[in-house]
Amino acid sequence: MDQFVGLTPRETVEKVSSSLGCSPTSAAVADHLDKQDPLRALRGEFLLPTVADLPPSDLSKVKGSQECIYMVGNSLGLQPKKARKYLEEEMENWAKMGVHGHVLGPRPWAWAENTIEELMANVVGAKTEEVALMNGLTVNLHLLLLSFYKPTATRHKILLEDKAFPSDHYAVESQIRLRGFDPQKSMLLISPRPGEETLRTEDIVRRIEEEGDSIAVVMFSGVQYYTGQLFNMAAITEAGHRKGCFVGFDCAHAAGNVELKLHDWGVDFACWCSYKYINSGAGGIAGAFIHEKHNDTVKPALVGWWGHDLKTRFRMNNVLDLQPGVSGFRLSNQPILLVCPLQASLEVFNMTSMQELRRKSLLLTGYLEFLILHYFREDASQPHKAHVRIITPSDPQQRGCQLSLCFSVPIRTVFQEMEKRGVACDMREPSVLRIAPVPLYNSFTDVHRFIETLRDALTASST
Amino acid sequence: MDQFVGLTPRETVEKVSSSLGCSPTSAAVADHLDKQDPLRALRGEFLLPTVADLPPSDLSKVKGSQECIYMVGNSLGLQPKKARKYLEEEMENWAKMGVHGHVLGPRPWAWAENTIEELMANVVGAKTEEVALMNGLTVNLHLLLLSFYKPTATRHKILLEDKAFPSDHYAVESQIRLRGFDPQKSMLLISPRPGEETLRTEDIVRRIEEEGDSIAVVMFSGVQYYTGQLFNMAAITEAGHRKGCFVGFDCAHAAGNVELKLHDWGVDFACWCSYKYINSGAGGIAGAFIHEKHNDTVKPALVGWWGHDLKTRFRMNNVLDLQPGVSGFRLSNQPILLVCPLQASLEVFNMTSMQELRRKSLLLTGYLEFLILHYFREDASQPHKAHVRIITPSDPQQRGCQLSLCFSVPIRTVFQEMEKRGVACDMREPSVLRIAPVPLYNSFTDVHRFIETLRDALTASST
Ligand SMILES: Cc1ncc(COP(=O)(O)O)c(C=O)c1O
Ligand SMILES: Cc1ncc(COP(=O)(O)O)c(C=O)c1O
Repeated sequence: MDQFVGLTPRETVEKVSSSLGCSPTSAAVADHLDKQDPLRALRGEFLLPTVADLPPSDLSKVKGSQECIYMVGNSLGLQPKKARKYLEEEMENWAKMGVHGHVLGPRPWAWAENTIEELMANVVGAKTEEVALMNGLTVNLHLLLLSFYKPTATRHKILLEDKAFPSDHYAVESQIRLRGFDPQKSMLLISPRPGEETLRTEDIVRRIEEEGDSIAVVMFSGVQYYTGQLFNMAAITEAGHRKGCFVGFDCAHAAGNVELKLHDWGVDFACWCSYKYINSGAGGIAGAFIHEKHNDTVKPALVGWWGHDLKTRFRMNNVLDLQPGVSGFRLSNQPILLVCPLQASLEVFNMTSMQELRRKSLLLTGYLEFLILHYFREDASQPHKAHVRIITPSDPQQRGCQLSLCFSVPIRTVFQEMEKRGVACDMREPSVLRIAPVPLYNSFTDVHRFIETLRDALTASST
Repeated sequence: MDQFVGLTPRETVEKVSSSLGCSPTSAAVADHLDKQDPLRALRGEFLLPTVADLPPSDLSKVKGSQECIYMVGNSLGLQPKKARKYLEEEMENWAKMGVHGHVLGPRPWAWAENTIEELMANVVGAKTEEVALMNGLTVNLHLLLLSFYKPTATRHKILLEDKAFPSDHYAVESQIRLRGFDPQKSMLLISPRPGEETLRTEDIVRRIEEEGDSIAVVMFSGVQYYTGQLFNMAAITEAGHRKGCFVGFDCAHAAGNVELKLHDWGVDFACWCSYKYINSGAGGIAGAFIHEKHNDTVKPALVGWWGHDLKTRFRMNNVLDLQPGVSGFRLSNQPILLVCPLQASLEVFNMTSMQELRRKSLLLTGYLEFLILHYFREDASQPHKAHVRIITPSDPQQRGCQLSLCFSVPIRTVFQEMEKRGVACDMREPSVLRIAPVPLYNSFTDVHRFIETLRDALTASST
């Protein structure tokens, strides 16, 4: 796609359509962009349901044999084709070797997660030793906060978004209570300005500057689950550090979606799940990051045998030899059956780079935005025409692949009409559809088909 | 096996051998006991490796096509045959339904673990609402201790075995540090009497009586991983409660092995893993128990969205509606790929009962003990003959299925000679082989073959 370098998505679309001699909204544009897409082969690494496969599809409205329009990688990534093969291998090892699988075979269970941590680290911009694959996201967030949140009488607050993901909200609330502080006073919630949907970096930075002396931890998501806003993690980290705060990120919606440089940005800690953009399957093994600068100073509050140095772990003499950094935070042995699909997905990431994925993503989501604005923008001259509002920032630097859409017609109806027509997307209370064209497996044609379907769905919802 | 009721294993063996007109050590006895075994069909529910399948087997010493002698269910249980089927179903659902699998299909991922908690509760003697399947064992132990260990200046100690499993030791040590206490002073370690291998219940109870006023939590294993000792959990719980302590158990080696009555005994909390006697595969999903008497008083220290009432969990309004009891301790969504094998195993448990399994287990392990004593007891008249000492209590009420063996010859050699001959068992530093005939899938013939192999291995090790 080198010929598009420096162009906005709109300019790219217009350039393509004029070279093809068609309308910018023509399917031919999508088809052309797909043919030019250097990453298009990666779609073949995943299992894509057909329309008929999806339970809500109404085959009187749409052809069942075609591939579905899967726009919900923000919730659950598609299955990498190799996942089943790797699982089969380990089920076979268990059946054939029993306990010997702990130390033999292609993924010795006793350290299988370690063998894919380098691939994981590449995806989030970390050094391998800064990453541990373990547990679930919320578990990891708690383990990290137990060490990074050390409230004192004067510095006891945690700054987070007013509408943080519920689990993060509860995690922070309970951590504050656990230390004997009052969430009413110590939980600092930041909201967008009145009438705005997303936070301004300047407002976040100013808040940190103003209240930073009382803030122990600044804790944001990387990409906001509801609005799709990508926070300026570098700026937030820098602002936090200037005021002596620790800064951590929940990268559930950022990992595998946008370029992360957790190490270079100097982020103190981070955690993420792997079932969304990292395609490891529901409840897959989660990640944790601690910057290496903390190796000698930040120790785990809770310790288990998996934090013990691997070389001497099984001597069982109850004399702890704690691994440095995030590795010391490991508690329990990890499930081989979850390592398998995660490995399969990380190997696909390893065929490209987050930089290349992001390049495609900017165009893919930009194309989606272009078509939405083209067809569904509010039009004063047609007050009764259904319209769509994008609450995700229009600045591409402030979003990942997801766009969050609000509708002038009842959202539940739109959602159902989309589902009947073979679109997988998700509705989040109270009022958005989250649409995530994922550069790893979604095509420009998917986006075009999505838009065509949305036109039909809106017509059906308006009548 | 009703005809054996009231007989000791030795008496049973002698009764059988005299009725068959053979020696008590004859393979015919094992064969007869297997034929009488009402649970023998359950072996067919598991995948048993052949001798040739096991990597260390030396096929010049043993026939490869026969089933191996799998005596290591204390470390990793065999694979239930249905595990692969259930996994296949969910991989297929993921491939075909994508995100819809969260709420559709035979095991909707968003609450799949809940659908098997009743089966799990039956195995540990708990009410369904007292059990949560989640995380790993050490993670759960920490979550429980954060709520049950509330040290004060006068009551700040945790009583545990001197040789507790390393992860438990580190967990307790770090919990004490986290509250600002000193493990040197607050970690009360209890050891067997000099010259003894295992703890006496009377000594544990006396220690609790003497020091109970300063003890916040009494925390034992159910079955000791190294010695195989089954603790008298009822007596320990009662003693702890008399002194106002909370009492918890790590049931890693007890769950699925012995009859547990966590509810009836009034145990305050417990945790266990599922990859040993519960056959869920390496790193399988763990269990946690909190007695319902604590529903209104003991709250989780750390909270996540999975602790929120399921009916309103996805409203995402950040107003916590915490589930009562152990359910409120849930943090992260749980992996469907781990629910599958666990379900497969629990369904096998559900074909029988822990009571029936225990009845068989007493005879099976008693038979093993009988043969060991018969062949390998120290013999003053033959000082150079290799002998075996069982450090597990000889009282069947004080052990599960495992016997821990020490040898007069170098253990590593014995272990290797056993492995060459198609036995899977495990060696634990410093000096035991742990042998676990599991009533769910091991046969009396397995035990007999094990003994024959041990005779060969000892001969090979002595020369
Ligand atoms: C008695 C006991 N406790 C704790 C553990 C640690 O388990 P996990 O790695 O599942 O946390 C084990 C593992 O074998 C164990 O045997
Ligand atoms: C932003 C964010 N944080 C936390 C979580 C909770 O994840 P888990 O259940 O894996 O702990 C999610 C799950 O979707 C999420 O989107």
